Amino acid sequence: MTTTPDGGTAVPADALAGGTTGPDALAPLLHTVLDALAKGAVDRAGPLPDGGPTGTARDIAHALRHPAPPTAPVTPPRPDLLRPRGTGPTEALHTLTRALARGAADPADPACAAHLHCPPLAVAAAADLAAAALNPSLDSWDQAPSATALEEAVITAFATLVGYDPAHAAGAVTSGGTESNLTALLLARDTALRAHAQQATPTHDPTDGIPPHWAGRLRVFCSTEAHFSIARSAGILGIGAGRTTTVPTDDRHRMDPAALDAALAAATRDGNLPVAVVATAGTTDTGSIDPLEPIAAVCRRHRVHLHVDASYGTGALFTPRLRPLLDGLPEADTIALDTHKLGWQPVASGILLARHADTFHPLAQRAAYLNPDDDEAAGYPSLLGRSLRTTRRADAFKIAVTLRALGTDGLGDLVERCHRLAHHAARRIDAHPRLELHAPPVLTTVVFRYLPPPGTPASATPTPPADPDRINARLRRRLLETGRAVIGRTTVRPATGPGTPPGTVRLKLTLLNPHTTPDDLDQLLSLVVTEGDALSTSHTPGDHPVPPRRPRCEEP
Amino acid sequence: MTTTPDGGTAVPADALAGGTTGPDALAPLLHTVLDALAKGAVDRAGPLPDGGPTGTARDIAHALRHPAPPTAPVTPPRPDLLRPRGTGPTEALHTLTRALARGAADPADPACAAHLHCPPLAVAAAADLAAAALNPSLDSWDQAPSATALEEAVITAFATLVGYDPAHAAGAVTSGGTESNLTALLLARDTALRAHAQQATPTHDPTDGIPPHWAGRLRVFCSTEAHFSIARSAGILGIGAGRTTTVPTDDRHRMDPAALDAALAAATRDGNLPVAVVATAGTTDTGSIDPLEPIAAVCRRHRVHLHVDASYGTGALFTPRLRPLLDGLPEADTIALDTHKLGWQPVASGILLARHADTFHPLAQRAAYLNPDDDEAAGYPSLLGRSLRTTRRADAFKIAVTLRALGTDGLGDLVERCHRLAHHAARRIDAHPRLELHAPPVLTTVVFRYLPPPGTPASATPTPPADPDRINARLRRRLLETGRAVIGRTTVRPATGPGTPPGTVRLKLTLLNPHTTPDDLDQLLSLVVTEGDALSTSHTPGDHPVPPRRPRCEEP
Repeated sequence: MTTTPDGGTAVPADALAGGTTGPDALAPLLHTVLDALAKGAVDRAGPLPDGGPTGTARDIAHALRHPAPPTAPVTPPRPDLLRPRGTGPTEALHTLTRALARGAADPADPACAAHLHCPPLAVAAAADLAAAALNPSLDSWDQAPSATALEEAVITAFATLVGYDPAHAAGAVTSGGTESNLTALLLARDTALRAHAQQATPTHDPTDGIPPHWAGRLRVFCSTEAHFSIARSAGILGIGAGRTTTVPTDDRHRMDPAALDAALAAATRDGNLPVAVVATAGTTDTGSIDPLEPIAAVCRRHRVHLHVDASYGTGALFTPRLRPLLDGLPEADTIALDTHKLGWQPVASGILLARHADTFHPLAQRAAYLNPDDDEAAGYPSLLGRSLRTTRRADAFKIAVTLRALGTDGLGDLVERCHRLAHHAARRIDAHPRLELHAPPVLTTVVFRYLPPPGTPASATPTPPADPDRINARLRRRLLETGRAVIGRTTVRPATGPGTPPGTVRLKLTLLNPHTTPDDLDQLLSLVVTEGDALSTSHTPGDHPVPPRRPRCEEP
Repeated sequence: MTTTPDGGTAVPADALAGGTTGPDALAPLLHTVLDALAKGAVDRAGPLPDGGPTGTARDIAHALRHPAPPTAPVTPPRPDLLRPRGTGPTEALHTLTRALARGAADPADPACAAHLHCPPLAVAAAADLAAAALNPSLDSWDQAPSATALEEAVITAFATLVGYDPAHAAGAVTSGGTESNLTALLLARDTALRAHAQQATPTHDPTDGIPPHWAGRLRVFCSTEAHFSIARSAGILGIGAGRTTTVPTDDRHRMDPAALDAALAAATRDGNLPVAVVATAGTTDTGSIDPLEPIAAVCRRHRVHLHVDASYGTGALFTPRLRPLLDGLPEADTIALDTHKLGWQPVASGILLARHADTFHPLAQRAAYLNPDDDEAAGYPSLLGRSLRTTRRADAFKIAVTLRALGTDGLGDLVERCHRLAHHAARRIDAHPRLELHAPPVLTTVVFRYLPPPGTPASATPTPPADPDRINARLRRRLLETGRAVIGRTTVRPATGPGTPPGTVRLKLTLLNPHTTPDDLDQLLSLVVTEGDALSTSHTPGDHPVPPRRPRCEEP
């Protein structure tokens, strides 16, 4: 390392993060990143940048373009990221990290509460650096000796936590609920096809793909509130996105086990093959948890694979108050968990568990360069058969560090804080004449909407009656565009109650920040009402100008 | 933050990484991580821990167990990661990071040269921290305003680099070559099925899955040297892993275009539907690059989707010397690139590109909570339809920072350094009587083996002739077990040359560390020969004791 004119330490551009010299190279670069993160957060001065997509795209383009490279422009022009000569690690890190932070929707801000998009714990983000620097890859032991052992320890911990017998269970860290769901449905599909091979061609080989006999006749069952990744996975797997049977829910958005029973019976009667039932423990919209015990009983009766998507519900594992919502979970054949929701990890940190390690059989894979027979016989473990991926980052590491640092009680406390915030918001919404609560919170989500006042605005020109869907969608975009708040939205079944204005658009607070206060929530709800009122009484909703919060970067 | 008795700063366990206070919370924790990384590297004192899988598992178990929790043991015993009370961020980070580093196979060590497992650049690992701290997720703009714009900039840069017209191309960052290949084959499958829908049921709906007419009749074509993820993807997609037609290669491990032409003609004649041809630009074993131009011509003639798996070959894009190996690349319909191989990024950082954005049509996805119609109409972009994942980490960020910091010439220089190292190793191997080169290096991989001496060892007891496969496999495991080197292995077709000892096991150096010197390689090859000689002349190969390099952690 050399010294720069201003006395700082210049790290060579080709310095590595690992080895004995990596920490010395990383130290000044991390200092640069922290400085840029802090300055970018001040630049942003809120939960997200103002100016909407156009403003952010302009800011990023500006950051990428400046300073102009010293060489003459080339023809045809090359993208700004393809400069032949680099600007060096310090300049590149500072400029782009500051731009990233300035243009972030930062979930650590209490007014950023739209999605299952958590603010990561500092301890988890710091742990993730160790995984990045050493770069273990879990597809073979000789790329990840300690990371392999640590992932197994994380799997054992979560298998115990869900109530599996860890001696028989197996699992792997995934990129999130979507990958967990896809993998689980793959395992279920191939297990079902193997069990019913004789009904297909007698000579059918599992490597022949979906046999003609069953093509178009495989079925996946989930509730109408299940995540879209279930149908999408069915599409990827060749089952067909449209071959997902959506089972009706009760008035609290939970799958109706009797309806599931009837749907399974009908499918079999029609000559179809049920591949899996997917129950949801924590729906994306309302956090509803399907009744797992009766669903498991139905699945046993029909001998069909039960997968529980507990990506959001993972948090309930840590607190005795919410844990009973997950009764029946250990009866699932496979479970999707997620620690980048109510687990405060940086993305990605999903977990797929199977009650029996055998369930992973369809993913068994032998590769001469990764897990040759004689290496396995000599005791070299291989996690290759646990994942759809080959190269796989040690995302288990940050989870292990977080579990150890906070303990299960510490994580439970964070879950409870968010749960209490949701109930506070629900009470405030319920009490407000301009707000309508959609459903009581189950985990940490509050679905609601703004209700325009019934009267016509005091205006010279008559206006059409305010459309609540349009106003709610617009008020959310206005909050985004002006950088004041990131709240979520979704669509619900048409409202039918007496006196309820029609409309299907709802707003959503997904409360994953344990540092948010009740006051923060009150302010956030005030913003919603103020913006809704402004749009309701405006002639041309959405057009009242809001000055930008900070000067924009201008193109030269 | 409070002050600890020793004057350090205690970060609360629930401190967040983001917001305006995140950098202050991260600073002391990162200091802890760097200290533990440095100490762990010294503990390890080499490319990987000694003691093999058993030793590492014991070390990790020890780290997880100590210090014993202050509370009384519970019955039944809980996994060590499920302590109710945490140990705090500093203790957890230091203990587990040091254990991770001590037990790592660190690719920054010149003697760690087995896999396409690169030592990350410090600048890239530092950039990754920013993504972890702010936690943008690319499935909706309102979780990732700046990260969305930056990913688009990275895609534009790589689309330009491969020779696509960036105005028409599209792509996304993936978890690696395997996900890129799976996604590309999904797009190809659904495009082929749509084009041939009328041959299936006239009323076939794309959401109905693989139609019975085509079940068992979809075909994917690749060479015998293609990565196993191609067949595995065909299995996942319901095509069938066994429905992959492997096309023969020439004596330099490259797909034979004439044989591909014949295989495609035969498939169509037999009533099968070719879904895609997968050419490889940089095979995992030898780095061989299929002749892309003639393959593209064959694909055009047969109107079949051409996907190029250039995961390893990505590095050749940066250097004029190797770039001609990729001639024909812009004719591919889709391309898998990877910057966690010859791009020195921490995992994960794959890239999937399509020449035409329309190719992504099968992944189009509307979700009311992520990308409602009216938000898109109002200018809010959505990358949801570019990826199999929903939640998706901003892995593009570190790639953008690295491109800017080093420039394309800087990256090209690193590629050339590794390429020269491979040629140096090949020359040394070729000149050594006990080593046999399998093929000249193309990119940065050298495949070879140790040849046991022909004579019988000077021993009183007659020994059976040494089996080169057994000796090569064992010598590699001995190097792993004793923590001296991580070299790769693979299986090749049986050797047939006159005088060549039989056997299919080969050793492999995959040279991705630009700081490795020719001297380092000479020492590594000496280690191989010494260990091979010891095994060849030993009565009971593998049993000569090697003292452990450091005292092991003992169970109390």
